[in-house]
Amino acid sequence: MKQDISASTQEISLKRVYSNDLESVSDVVAIEAPLEIRLKSKKEIIGKAISVTMRTPGDDVLLAKGFLFTEGILTNHIDILACEITDENVVEVTIREEANPTLGKAERNFYTTSSCGVCGKSSIDAIKVKSRFSLEPALPKIDKSALFNLQSKVLELQSAFTQTGGIHAAALFTSSGELITLREDVGRHNATDKLIGECWGKGLLPLLDNILFLSGRASFELIQKATMAGIAVIVSVGAPSSLAIELAEERGHTLVGFLKENRFNIYCGHERIE
Amino acid sequence: MKQDISASTQEISLKRVYSNDLESVSDVVAIEAPLEIRLKSKKEIIGKAISVTMRTPGDDVLLAKGFLFTEGILTNHIDILACEITDENVVEVTIREEANPTLGKAERNFYTTSSCGVCGKSSIDAIKVKSRFSLEPALPKIDKSALFNLQSKVLELQSAFTQTGGIHAAALFTSSGELITLREDVGRHNATDKLIGECWGKGLLPLLDNILFLSGRASFELIQKATMAGIAVIVSVGAPSSLAIELAEERGHTLVGFLKENRFNIYCGHERIE
Repeated sequence: MKQDISASTQEISLKRVYSNDLESVSDVVAIEAPLEIRLKSKKEIIGKAISVTMRTPGDDVLLAKGFLFTEGILTNHIDILACEITDENVVEVTIREEANPTLGKAERNFYTTSSCGVCGKSSIDAIKVKSRFSLEPALPKIDKSALFNLQSKVLELQSAFTQTGGIHAAALFTSSGELITLREDVGRHNATDKLIGECWGKGLLPLLDNILFLSGRASFELIQKATMAGIAVIVSVGAPSSLAIELAEERGHTLVGFLKENRFNIYCGHERIE
Repeated sequence: MKQDISASTQEISLKRVYSNDLESVSDVVAIEAPLEIRLKSKKEIIGKAISVTMRTPGDDVLLAKGFLFTEGILTNHIDILACEITDENVVEVTIREEANPTLGKAERNFYTTSSCGVCGKSSIDAIKVKSRFSLEPALPKIDKSALFNLQSKVLELQSAFTQTGGIHAAALFTSSGELITLREDVGRHNATDKLIGECWGKGLLPLLDNILFLSGRASFELIQKATMAGIAVIVSVGAPSSLAIELAEERGHTLVGFLKENRFNIYCGHERIE
């Protein structure tokens, strides 16, 4: 297998088997590789490893930023002095000495071996992250016809998915359905972090007037990331989980699922859809 | 939203939007809720929290066992004296005093904040778990026609998926395509852990002659779990990632992807398919 470090896909050889036939072909698969995110400040010479995530290479700096923001570790982008790829699978984030990263919260969030000794409802509470932004009730107003077209707009641009069939997309749209940006990854949470990392770096948060489009199912952690970025409207192609609906309701989001060209389901916050 | 603790699905109310219509309906979604796995022995009165995973309730004991086994924390089932649901979202595993759980490895595996200070290849190595079992080259022999029918057999039995469209299945088949067991979860890794936990408890490992069927994509961690259980043949409905193929090749698995009723792709280990 050949691999281009900067690429998100890779060419491989395989056997394709049919009922009465067999052919040797080459095809393209999505790359999955570990990314280590390190945090350092002038006070510390060696960066502290914060997380290792299995991601698709490309946009690693955006992924690192998005991860630090949506997990509640850093709040202000100005605290980041540098964010650099220091090795093939390492991003090092240098922060200001005055920055006060919330690592205790991180430790509770990453489902670690040293994780919360609490249970049930308390456990859910412990893995929730608090957002700086609050959503405006019933805003933005979205015309339902704008939603019907989102998926075809994403598929037009989603190059790695078209090639591999094995990669997720997170896309940001205006309230009238114009595409702003799109990011891809084998992990849905990583695609979402790349997108939010980009917007955070550009000073665009909160994204109160925008729509977050997710190519797969909507789970708890994706709703939480939308909450952190102040995105009121979340639209997914797949099914939501029970906890995704519960959290979306509690935080005041509009949650749409099973988006198709001529129909969709609204699980909560239907007053934003006209 | 009503929730039956023992259920894997839950009834919800939603608005279904069509081009020219809107209806209020009720539907069923997959439950996603945190499960805390605690490990304790007579030496310690209070159990140590090993992991919190977002899972679909049901088969929690199997999930806890499978997790402990596939992550390399426990090797011998006899070390488990009791495995009990002590609270709605907590499973407590009591182990023998002589048992020697490999928690250091766990700490490196759960992508924790205190995670490996290594990078690139070393990082991949650090998250790999070593299996007790080795696979037999070119065995079992599988007739390709047996594979074409696997998905329809799974869909017949996959009650929660049929209801919700938002849940993954892992199923174990004989080499001739007869279903042995099937487990479901919102997380692919959890469905696989439930299945392997069941087989481990029944003393069925290694599963050298069986086929592991995965309803979604094949990623690194799923291959690793198959390696731990000694399952040579892995068949997925979706795409594999680059690292899944790399690991499957290295460990001597047969990896099939994009399984359909009349075709599939073999990414490695094609000598087992006839």
